[in-house]
Amino acid sequence: MAPQFSDWSREVQDEVERALGAFLPPAGAVPHKLHEAMRYTTLGGGKRVRPLLAYAAGALFGADADALARVAGAVEMIHVYSLVHDDMPCMDDDALRRGKPTVHVAYDEATALLVGDTLQAQAFQVLADSETVPPARLVKMVRLLAQAAGSSGMCGGQAIDLDSVGLVLNREELERMHQLKTGAMLRVSVVLGALAGRDLSDEELQALDTYSAAVGLAFQVVDDVLDATADSATLGKTAGKDAADNKPTYVSILGLAPSRALAEQLRRDAHDALAPFGDKAQRLRELADLIVQRKA
Amino acid sequence: MAPQFSDWSREVQDEVERALGAFLPPAGAVPHKLHEAMRYTTLGGGKRVRPLLAYAAGALFGADADALARVAGAVEMIHVYSLVHDDMPCMDDDALRRGKPTVHVAYDEATALLVGDTLQAQAFQVLADSETVPPARLVKMVRLLAQAAGSSGMCGGQAIDLDSVGLVLNREELERMHQLKTGAMLRVSVVLGALAGRDLSDEELQALDTYSAAVGLAFQVVDDVLDATADSATLGKTAGKDAADNKPTYVSILGLAPSRALAEQLRRDAHDALAPFGDKAQRLRELADLIVQRKA
Repeated sequence: MAPQFSDWSREVQDEVERALGAFLPPAGAVPHKLHEAMRYTTLGGGKRVRPLLAYAAGALFGADADALARVAGAVEMIHVYSLVHDDMPCMDDDALRRGKPTVHVAYDEATALLVGDTLQAQAFQVLADSETVPPARLVKMVRLLAQAAGSSGMCGGQAIDLDSVGLVLNREELERMHQLKTGAMLRVSVVLGALAGRDLSDEELQALDTYSAAVGLAFQVVDDVLDATADSATLGKTAGKDAADNKPTYVSILGLAPSRALAEQLRRDAHDALAPFGDKAQRLRELADLIVQRKA
Repeated sequence: MAPQFSDWSREVQDEVERALGAFLPPAGAVPHKLHEAMRYTTLGGGKRVRPLLAYAAGALFGADADALARVAGAVEMIHVYSLVHDDMPCMDDDALRRGKPTVHVAYDEATALLVGDTLQAQAFQVLADSETVPPARLVKMVRLLAQAAGSSGMCGGQAIDLDSVGLVLNREELERMHQLKTGAMLRVSVVLGALAGRDLSDEELQALDTYSAAVGLAFQVVDDVLDATADSATLGKTAGKDAADNKPTYVSILGLAPSRALAEQLRRDAHDALAPFGDKAQRLRELADLIVQRKA
């Protein structure tokens, strides 16, 4: 019998923690402060949602342990770098992240800037260093990661977010922003996890895309609900910040109850998309549930 | 007869300008401000030293036009992102670069942060999108670019530089810092340009490494000499900043005349390293001359 989801996810989180520890430069190597700060912000925290998605998709397509650890490490490093830079004074100016002082608070702004820059390079290195994925597929994976991280993905969404502070976005515009800002990296986590196993047919890729789009959007809707309803201690970051910053959210556009209903609908859409994969997609289904039902 | 060096270098610079323009997202695409700022800082300026090195090495190993444009575009994007971030207030706080206001001055700090982040992702995408380089070699090239950009290369050197402000570095420590901060990207420009053509033997790689190390160091020594002797208008950036910031330089450690003599010795070392390649390495020789004899 397959282990319980909670046991599986804890095992993956432990494996990701171990892999990240091995992929990051040792704190004892020069330059010490940079390496120490990279480890401070990357290790010992985080829900590891992107790695969990990669492992769940990888399990479905028979990915080996090294390839999966590299995909998970790479997407998490990109995610962590984006948090470090987003928290800086010139962006969101946040002092708390994952329950700890942010990098520019614990160290200084120059270090935070460099930590993010270095983590991005390290992410591409960790992925490209794979020796078990055939080169042609690995090149495709590097390309997809770069697209998801760049101006047609995460950074583009971040730029739209910055440009929209104080504006009234409609639901379509808000959705487009989030598809780029968080959706692109969630989606690529699923696709890269699958590609760590084997090449995908167009139908398989389409099913995973539909799943990822629903999960990505659900993730953001739930984030907005939690930002409006939970406290900072539970979130491990400053709660109520979006409203304080006058940023458009699902809660501000749709209201609280409709936002919760939307998240639930998206959870069901995600399940439906996985129908072609049968029981083997159980972990991806459970992750959709986790993302919608989480409390932080 | 081969064209004059000045004609060749202008042709390469024009080709790189055109390629960068095509590789960057169009300014008309959303998010406009991000894309406009990426083009503002990447296009229309710069000596394009790294692309010139890549083209010179590529010519030696029969690289095709698309592969070379991608290598040149990728290394230049990494270089430009590092300038944008280095110029930010939390780092060097510089208002002038390539004769224009820096990105955080012309736009704002958040945009400068995002422009750098996006350019780094775009660099990996431009390289990985190559369709003429066989995948196994392309994976190796992505790996080398990530190493040169990350904590064992440019970012690591930048961190050592930050940590050493106000300290008295000896010559070996200064050299080590520059080998990482500028040397790693100059070296990888040569190696990637060569790999765009074909796989290299250990002897060929060793010869290119010796050349690159000499040129990289010469580049920095000349930078320090120019910072101490030229004016801001000539440099296109703020002159005398290293001394004002109390940063160790070759001029402060060795003195002006010995620094000039060292640069000349390194130029000869670079020429000597190219002996096995004969006449075909003429452009690499001329680039070593250019780097040592430049006035800005």
